[in-house]
Amino acid sequence: MQAVQLGLMGCGTVGTGVAKLLLQQRQLIESHTGIPLELKYVADLDHTTDRGITFAPGVFIRDAHQIINDPQVDIVIEMIGGTTIAKELILAAIAKGKQVVTANKALLATSGNEIFQAATAAGVDLAFEASVGGCMPIIKSLREALVGNEIQAMVGILNGTCNYILTRITEEGLPFAEALAQAQENGFAEADPTLDVEGMDAAHKLAIITALAYGMHINYKDVYTEGISAITPLDIQFANDFGYRIKLLAICKNRGQAVEARVHPTMIPMDNILSNVNGSLNAVTISGHAVQDLFLSGRGAGMMPTASAVLSDVVDLARNLRQRAVGRVPLLGWQPDKVQTKPVMPVTEIVTHYYFRFAVQDRPGVLAAIAGVLGDNGISIKSVQQKGRKTDGHVPIVMLTHRAKEANVQKALDVIGRLDVVGAKPMVIRIEDENQES
Amino acid sequence: MQAVQLGLMGCGTVGTGVAKLLLQQRQLIESHTGIPLELKYVADLDHTTDRGITFAPGVFIRDAHQIINDPQVDIVIEMIGGTTIAKELILAAIAKGKQVVTANKALLATSGNEIFQAATAAGVDLAFEASVGGCMPIIKSLREALVGNEIQAMVGILNGTCNYILTRITEEGLPFAEALAQAQENGFAEADPTLDVEGMDAAHKLAIITALAYGMHINYKDVYTEGISAITPLDIQFANDFGYRIKLLAICKNRGQAVEARVHPTMIPMDNILSNVNGSLNAVTISGHAVQDLFLSGRGAGMMPTASAVLSDVVDLARNLRQRAVGRVPLLGWQPDKVQTKPVMPVTEIVTHYYFRFAVQDRPGVLAAIAGVLGDNGISIKSVQQKGRKTDGHVPIVMLTHRAKEANVQKALDVIGRLDVVGAKPMVIRIEDENQES
Repeated sequence: MQAVQLGLMGCGTVGTGVAKLLLQQRQLIESHTGIPLELKYVADLDHTTDRGITFAPGVFIRDAHQIINDPQVDIVIEMIGGTTIAKELILAAIAKGKQVVTANKALLATSGNEIFQAATAAGVDLAFEASVGGCMPIIKSLREALVGNEIQAMVGILNGTCNYILTRITEEGLPFAEALAQAQENGFAEADPTLDVEGMDAAHKLAIITALAYGMHINYKDVYTEGISAITPLDIQFANDFGYRIKLLAICKNRGQAVEARVHPTMIPMDNILSNVNGSLNAVTISGHAVQDLFLSGRGAGMMPTASAVLSDVVDLARNLRQRAVGRVPLLGWQPDKVQTKPVMPVTEIVTHYYFRFAVQDRPGVLAAIAGVLGDNGISIKSVQQKGRKTDGHVPIVMLTHRAKEANVQKALDVIGRLDVVGAKPMVIRIEDENQES
Repeated sequence: MQAVQLGLMGCGTVGTGVAKLLLQQRQLIESHTGIPLELKYVADLDHTTDRGITFAPGVFIRDAHQIINDPQVDIVIEMIGGTTIAKELILAAIAKGKQVVTANKALLATSGNEIFQAATAAGVDLAFEASVGGCMPIIKSLREALVGNEIQAMVGILNGTCNYILTRITEEGLPFAEALAQAQENGFAEADPTLDVEGMDAAHKLAIITALAYGMHINYKDVYTEGISAITPLDIQFANDFGYRIKLLAICKNRGQAVEARVHPTMIPMDNILSNVNGSLNAVTISGHAVQDLFLSGRGAGMMPTASAVLSDVVDLARNLRQRAVGRVPLLGWQPDKVQTKPVMPVTEIVTHYYFRFAVQDRPGVLAAIAGVLGDNGISIKSVQQKGRKTDGHVPIVMLTHRAKEANVQKALDVIGRLDVVGAKPMVIRIEDENQES
């Protein structure tokens, strides 16, 4: 049987994993599919690094355009990353009628609508399983397995770096900076960790899966995003006292005409299965009206787990090519004319439970002053705790609230922050606790 | 666009759920797929039960053969269950060239090879996602998402009834019979619970997914199967002391020329994510050489979660029909000529850690006698605990072993069971603990 010809653009960590799987598991893959996959080209500028792979002559090239311009290449695998050259190459490949596989969440989050439109117009498949959650088949689940479900919510740990750091803070009581340094030493954080620790990477992923869940255009810029750099061991300890863990969660919810889409440190009950997802693991709970909660967990990054997801896309597209069934599943899982522009609810409109930590002067009337401001803004306190030593003349007071509207919380905290008995800026952490009624 | 015509055979709990999803979510499904799905027939002998569905005239019929014999029906959905009429109808549908969806694990475990052969010969698709793990996309993951992986092992909680009962015993210290009665009261166990509590249902499911994982014919009769009816609160308490939980696990492992396939109560470390899967939930960890561990969890039974999985199969097959891509993914996920007969290793050949509980007379020399027999059979003790009150003149002694061969364990326990200082038959529970080196 004639082989399906592949061109791999970018041979960094994940690209190397993809090349290894394709070369080492060729026979296994053909036993499953009956389709020989031929890695015709691997393009990368770096020809000096030893990747542990011996390519046949002519395979390892420098110029990715050679892949685009070879009419024999059926599927292009973009593993370059970034939002400039990768975009140009993907659009060029689409224009040449090639099928495309990518893991590029940053690109899809920022230019996905344009790219999907081009692919739809050209009638090519574009698959991106590895862009969210590494090896977890979250996109396949949304596009295929959950097709009869109204998706009510998705709540996920989608950034392994943050989860690793929060786990270190939780288990060892390290301050954030030390936990980050550990993550960097152990290869779980980049030299510049901003994209990860400030939540942008998780927001990219959330924007993509929100679009799949709700049949909407990707709307990354309206995803509310807050990172983990302000989380202290003290907050983790208080969370523990209340029976919670702190995780960086990516959350989307169906709110009728709008959706919620937000990434922030979140307290969740210890008996929530996400609480037990530790280290660099990723996980997601998808709530659908028929399935109730479907939970997936696995390696969200790394050479081979991510390569496995890329390969699953390559095989899907090769099967479509072989059966002349390109477009069998639409790109976002919805018919293109059903994909709408749906507004993302401003964070000020959300209603949830909150954790506040105030640093206050240890004297009479302080609690009354704070409680008064909260009451004036319709925020009802569920429990209060004062614990720990005085530092800089202040003691920590912690409160958990009943459900409150974020706009009211922001207003109240603004007033409280300006009270002269309150020290540093109040700490706020949102709580997701389905066990709480009100 | 012309509709794909469906015939549903059997309108019990899951069948009703499927009908509801098809009728109530018709528009949602069409928004995803672009394919109208028409529920042309629902066949069931019971026309008196109120299912909360109003069928159009002519849809709700008695005789399933009417579905088989209508050339307009494209996809037959078998929800009758059992291994007699269901088998006859599925084979008849295949003979008429219809696509088939089923959730019938008992039938596939016992007659799957014959049915898959017939479907392959007729060139029709046969899908069975709902036969294992309810809403969890475990079959889609094995057939599609993990296609480049050598599957090393699968370890799963595949029977919600047993998991519910074990959870009750663990949380409330109930004896097995009371926990079973509770399960029956709450709708988590059948009036005749044998298939579930004796492990046969989990073994059916394991036989199916082992075939998918290793490209082998289904071999149900060689799956070693042990139920949970002998588990006592005392064992669960001892497990707890050692940092373990007891779960009914379905386990398969790649052992080169053979596979391990076994279902039995198993001790697993509390920090294993499966330990936290409680109540009637199902879950599975799939270990592949590239993904490492992929974990899925969700409702393994119930009307709507199972119906959701059935619908995902119906949509997959409808997409294949519409694209003339029937056979796009082979039935077992492997090319038919690659599916082999692979032996299941006899349980006597497995090597693992063990928990033993002996009821012994409280007098000198007993421990030495037991330890001597174990030593003679090459079984090395890792820890010993004696705890709890004397009952019937006996006290419980518990031992954990290093890795030992099951054949040696059986031989040793046979000898120990005949010592006059040992009371009841020794209790044996296998341990899966990857943290233990030896």
